[in-house]
Parts: sequence; C-alpha cells; structure tokens
Amino acid sequence: MTPQQARERFAAARVARLATIDPSGRPHLVPIVFAVDGDTVYSAVDDKPKRTTELRRLGNVRANPSVSVLVDHYDEDWSKLWWVRADGTGRVLEAGTAEAEHAITLLAERYPQQRAVGAVLAIDVARWSGWSSG
Amino acid sequence: MTPQQARERFAAARVARLATIDPSGRPHLVPIVFAVDGDTVYSAVDDKPKRTTELRRLGNVRANPSVSVLVDHYDEDWSKLWWVRADGTGRVLEAGTAEAEHAITLLAERYPQQRAVGAVLAIDVARWSGWSSG
Repeated sequence: MTPQQARERFAAARVARLATIDPSGRPHLVPIVFAVDGDTVYSAVDDKPKRTTELRRLGNVRANPSVSVLVDHYDEDWSKLWWVRADGTGRVLEAGTAEAEHAITLLAERYPQQRAVGAVLAIDVARWSGWSSG
Repeated sequence: MTPQQARERFAAARVARLATIDPSGRPHLVPIVFAVDGDTVYSAVDDKPKRTTELRRLGNVRANPSVSVLVDHYDEDWSKLWWVRADGTGRVLEAGTAEAEHAITLLAERYPQQRAVGAVLAIDVARWSGWSSG
C-alpha cells in the first residue's frame, strides 16, 4: 500500500486509536474521532471531560510529542483485513487560534454529534503506512 | 465500568490494538487477534511473517515490556460508544513451552482462520479499565 493509499483509507475512517507515551514511559491508548487535512490529523477533547483519563493524552503529548494513530478493519474472512497507520508528532493547539478554529470546523463537518470542543490535538504525520491481506 | 466488566467486554471482542514502545522511545501500534485467559492476553505472530513490521512488536516487548491493548466500539449514535483497555507487561513465549502450546490452543479455538503460529506474545494485565458513554 502506498503512503497516499494509506492516507486515503485513514481519512475515510470514522474512528482511530491514538497511542501516546505517558510520563513514566508507558504507552497510553484511547480511541479518537478525527479529521485529516493534508498530512495533519486533528482530534478534539470534549469541553467538559468527565474523567481525568480524557486529558491524559494532552499531558502526554505536551511532555512527549511522539504519537502513533491506527485505523484497522477486521473481518472474519482474513483475506479482507487491512490497517493503516499515521506516525508523527502531536501538538496541543491553543484555543482560539486560526488552526484550532479550522480543526473544529473540520471535525463538526464530519461529526454532527460532536459536543462543544475543549482542546484540539494536531498530529503532524511524518509517515503514512499500511497493510492489506487482500 | 468495573475491572471485571472491562475484562469481560475485552475477552468477547474479535480484534484489539496493541501499543508497544520502540527502541527509540516512540509508540508502535498494530491490530491483533487474541485470546484472554484470566488476567493474561495471548496473541500470535504468523509463522512466516512477510514484513519486518510484524516482528517489531516482539523486539519492542523484549526491550521494553510495557504494553497497552485497546478494544473499542464505535457507533454513529454516540450514546453507544465504549472502550476497554488492558495495561500490563508483555513476554515473548518460548516456542514449545506448555504456556505457548496452551495459548496456541486458545487462539485456534477462537480463530479457525489462524494459520501456523510463529511466536506467541503473552501480556500480563495489571489493570483492566474501560469507559462507556451509555
């Protein structure tokens, strides 16, 4: 799969999983909704997160920007499996900046269900990769 | 969600995502099929992996055993979202040991599609956690 093909499959998916590194050097993993714009992946945290775990990803990225984001497709027919991955570095956007507003617009277009957004995470993708069994 | 509930939802899923840390300290993310036995998650690598990426997870775990494994459920109705996570430490099992054979049996029962297994990864789960929007 070419990087361009991986990026297209990634951009079309509805959910992905974000891996960050926590301050003790352990991996941290959460599902995210997202929007892709070129080689940047945007994701948001709800305005009023109910659990501290929802904010851990932001603290992790501030301390260590290395992130990996995965989209995968499972099927009981294993000739139809595929996954695509975006590896890069994360940035927590300042609220009110043009980039944050742009990201919120992109996310609102993809997810009418999205509630008010708090912080926005931008991931600058250094490498799109993927695998398909078919 | 209690740890027991998280474990049950996790065990019933067909696919999960494994996060490891690579030698440069960056997160690495791949989908896995798996079987749960108590507080251990077993996963296998195909006998003849076609890509080096399929083996990276094993090298990563040997160098840094910290892993996180996520199962999530996406639905356009965001009142039905949930995820469950297993955080723990990984071990690459020696081929031919009783534990490796046990794991291969469990995996074959869950996945008749599974081809010959090469290495088996065991993850000792220190913490089951989860979240549900409903």
